Amino acid sequence: MARFNTKPISGARDFLPADMLRRKYVIDIIERVYQSYGFEPLETPAMERLDTLLGKYGDEGDQLIFRVAKRGDKLQRALEENPTEESIADAGLRYDLTVPLARIVAEYRNELPRYFKRYQIAPVYRADRPAKGRYREFYQCDVDIVGSASPAVEAEVLAAGAQVLQTLGFVGKGESGFALRLNHRGILRGLMEVAGIREELEGGALVAVDKLDKIGPDGVQAELLDRGVSAESTAALMGFIAAVPSDEGERMVWLGDLLEGSEQGSRGVAGLKDVLALSGYGPAAEHLRLDPFLARGLSYYTGAIFEIEFPGLSGSGGGGGRYDDLVGMFSNQTVPACGFALGLDRILLILEERGMFPEHLAGQPQVLVTQFDESTQGASLLLAHRLRAAGLRVDLYPDLDRYGRQFKYADERKIPFALLLGSNEIAQGIVAVKDLRSGEQVEMEASLVSNWLNEQLRV
Amino acid sequence: MARFNTKPISGARDFLPADMLRRKYVIDIIERVYQSYGFEPLETPAMERLDTLLGKYGDEGDQLIFRVAKRGDKLQRALEENPTEESIADAGLRYDLTVPLARIVAEYRNELPRYFKRYQIAPVYRADRPAKGRYREFYQCDVDIVGSASPAVEAEVLAAGAQVLQTLGFVGKGESGFALRLNHRGILRGLMEVAGIREELEGGALVAVDKLDKIGPDGVQAELLDRGVSAESTAALMGFIAAVPSDEGERMVWLGDLLEGSEQGSRGVAGLKDVLALSGYGPAAEHLRLDPFLARGLSYYTGAIFEIEFPGLSGSGGGGGRYDDLVGMFSNQTVPACGFALGLDRILLILEERGMFPEHLAGQPQVLVTQFDESTQGASLLLAHRLRAAGLRVDLYPDLDRYGRQFKYADERKIPFALLLGSNEIAQGIVAVKDLRSGEQVEMEASLVSNWLNEQLRV
Repeated sequence: MARFNTKPISGARDFLPADMLRRKYVIDIIERVYQSYGFEPLETPAMERLDTLLGKYGDEGDQLIFRVAKRGDKLQRALEENPTEESIADAGLRYDLTVPLARIVAEYRNELPRYFKRYQIAPVYRADRPAKGRYREFYQCDVDIVGSASPAVEAEVLAAGAQVLQTLGFVGKGESGFALRLNHRGILRGLMEVAGIREELEGGALVAVDKLDKIGPDGVQAELLDRGVSAESTAALMGFIAAVPSDEGERMVWLGDLLEGSEQGSRGVAGLKDVLALSGYGPAAEHLRLDPFLARGLSYYTGAIFEIEFPGLSGSGGGGGRYDDLVGMFSNQTVPACGFALGLDRILLILEERGMFPEHLAGQPQVLVTQFDESTQGASLLLAHRLRAAGLRVDLYPDLDRYGRQFKYADERKIPFALLLGSNEIAQGIVAVKDLRSGEQVEMEASLVSNWLNEQLRV
Repeated sequence: MARFNTKPISGARDFLPADMLRRKYVIDIIERVYQSYGFEPLETPAMERLDTLLGKYGDEGDQLIFRVAKRGDKLQRALEENPTEESIADAGLRYDLTVPLARIVAEYRNELPRYFKRYQIAPVYRADRPAKGRYREFYQCDVDIVGSASPAVEAEVLAAGAQVLQTLGFVGKGESGFALRLNHRGILRGLMEVAGIREELEGGALVAVDKLDKIGPDGVQAELLDRGVSAESTAALMGFIAAVPSDEGERMVWLGDLLEGSEQGSRGVAGLKDVLALSGYGPAAEHLRLDPFLARGLSYYTGAIFEIEFPGLSGSGGGGGRYDDLVGMFSNQTVPACGFALGLDRILLILEERGMFPEHLAGQPQVLVTQFDESTQGASLLLAHRLRAAGLRVDLYPDLDRYGRQFKYADERKIPFALLLGSNEIAQGIVAVKDLRSGEQVEMEASLVSNWLNEQLRV
């Protein structure tokens, strides 16, 4: 018989229990923090109508959408009539969680509260070429507030993101912490304006400037010229880049002076000042860093933009911003919105590398109840059920087997305690408790076991 | 501009926050109980290779698999060369969680512990015709133990299922509870044998017998004859159905006598006796009901089979059984396995109809911090952050607005308390707390608010 290919499909991953418990540890913290900020969960289908998805992510994005084939007669008809990529499919897998949010806001606007604060933690699908750290199925952890243009919204989503990372153990702005890079589309536009960059070149210039971290000032300069920005404007822009005050406190004043003559620029400076001021009251305060050349690729941002940076590591740990023109796309209205997304895979990788996971993760079994022989099976089951009722996570060894094999199994599953309940123990009303890490074994009254274990596991 | 169709795709559902909190309440209990039984989480991709899925669910099942189209050049080639349903797709959406489990067991056998106890709670996809209660995307909540043939395994999965339902508030076996119907494939085979039904008619006869609850004895009789079962065998089988002792305690003895001459039947009786005996020590005990004609549609069961019944309601709330030949399908080995799946949608429906959800669900915001004017915005944010640090779920009204509109928003979101912090309150170091259900308002020192709210919300 042929050997089946039992690997997960290209670009997707299987998460075995050890992985899952780490993922759930992080996701639980994200959820708990998001909920503590008044966000509520939303879930949308993995499949969306193809016309809901197409045209929202640019031509390149359209090519990355997984298409689900039509079925039955509809598919037969499509296959018979000069079939195309477009004609054979009627659904696609969601590419992100923002377009589904926009659909939800349009469909349920009368049922939703004045401000819609939702989080959604769910896999999204992109038919990208798989590579290290790039997957075709990966989780997004989005939090958004829809319906308010107040800078308090930016302050809240920044605080929620910062609180998640602090709860995970990231401290301060330095090596063991993270920075929240902050900018505003108005500031970027203002800088372009003051540098004399024509509007039609602005998009390309932003793409070049956004690469400052990756390719350095020389690389940006070359790319600006390459993209048709005049020598004069390029020189002006490179001058701004060189002139950014290293003292972060002075940057806002510097920007305010530089952009005084630009309406967009002044709007950006004023907007960011408000966000910074309101963020000062919460957990984001110590992580904020004004970064006037942060652009973020996505063109849909309209106001503040932000990005998580882990010092010393390239790439971002998540980010977000204000996007007032996007959520209304299905309802033909302007609906102010601002959101933040955490990069789950990246955060997991850093926690792993830095050994930041707790030793015992919630969900791991804590106790193995062993089996002695057929006559003691009922007593073992009863003990297991009693310990479960006392809040412990208890595995029962299913077969009758040598103790050595039962302990080996506990070890494979990283279960710290094994309980022995043979005919002798039952006759005496005791249980033998073996600590599988130290090998030590103690005997105690059966009625005391659950309290004793709960004590030991609390440490 | 054309109006977009913003409904979810046919057969799938959007879950707004109120729905989600109820779903999460149930899923959290399922997870917590499964973990307390030593099960650990597994996650597999939504997409599987098409050849992993096809041929596992019968011809009808194959037709219900959502196929994901090939991409780029591969698709172009397929479209140019006489395209078929088979040639244009290379992936499909998972149809259940059992085939992925079988793939996992084959792929990672060297990494998995001797007994693999996993749960998986995840959506599955079937291109069925949507109907009331039948969806194209729906959750399965599976728990399985792979690697042991011991009846302790059946006892454990039955206990876990029963514990979930008890924790959700179902009591006893009667109107406000549930029954666990129990049978064994050996018993069914034995009954067929003793009734003289030829082996090639057994499958069809089982399908007929399985409908006893739906179509009654007359219906079953007609269908048996219709399916080619002889008049004599049909009469014998109908005689058995009529002769089942109404006293549940007597059923096992009756079956033992009846099936004494059948090897398969005797194996079934002995097997079920073990399962019943071991189940007596745990939460399943009071719900078990031996039901010798329970067949469950799926042909892959090899031993015990079980099904949740909510008295007075048709359809099942979940079920499972032993299936020793399925998990090894990708590794060409016999791997004993037994599992249980809860029907999430059905359970949610019953909880809803019977008003069994708690009044306040975890995750709902508990407090709204209002805003007074621009000068007090910082104080409001600070208060919100302090309450969050004290473990409360706190929403902040983002805009400056009349109190009436702020209260109305709290009401829309079912938030029970609003905190007022105007310039007067700030000057006095107090906070006004409004209970939005009673309309009562009390003032207290700012430092006491979090304790007071935690007290109130604990009730």
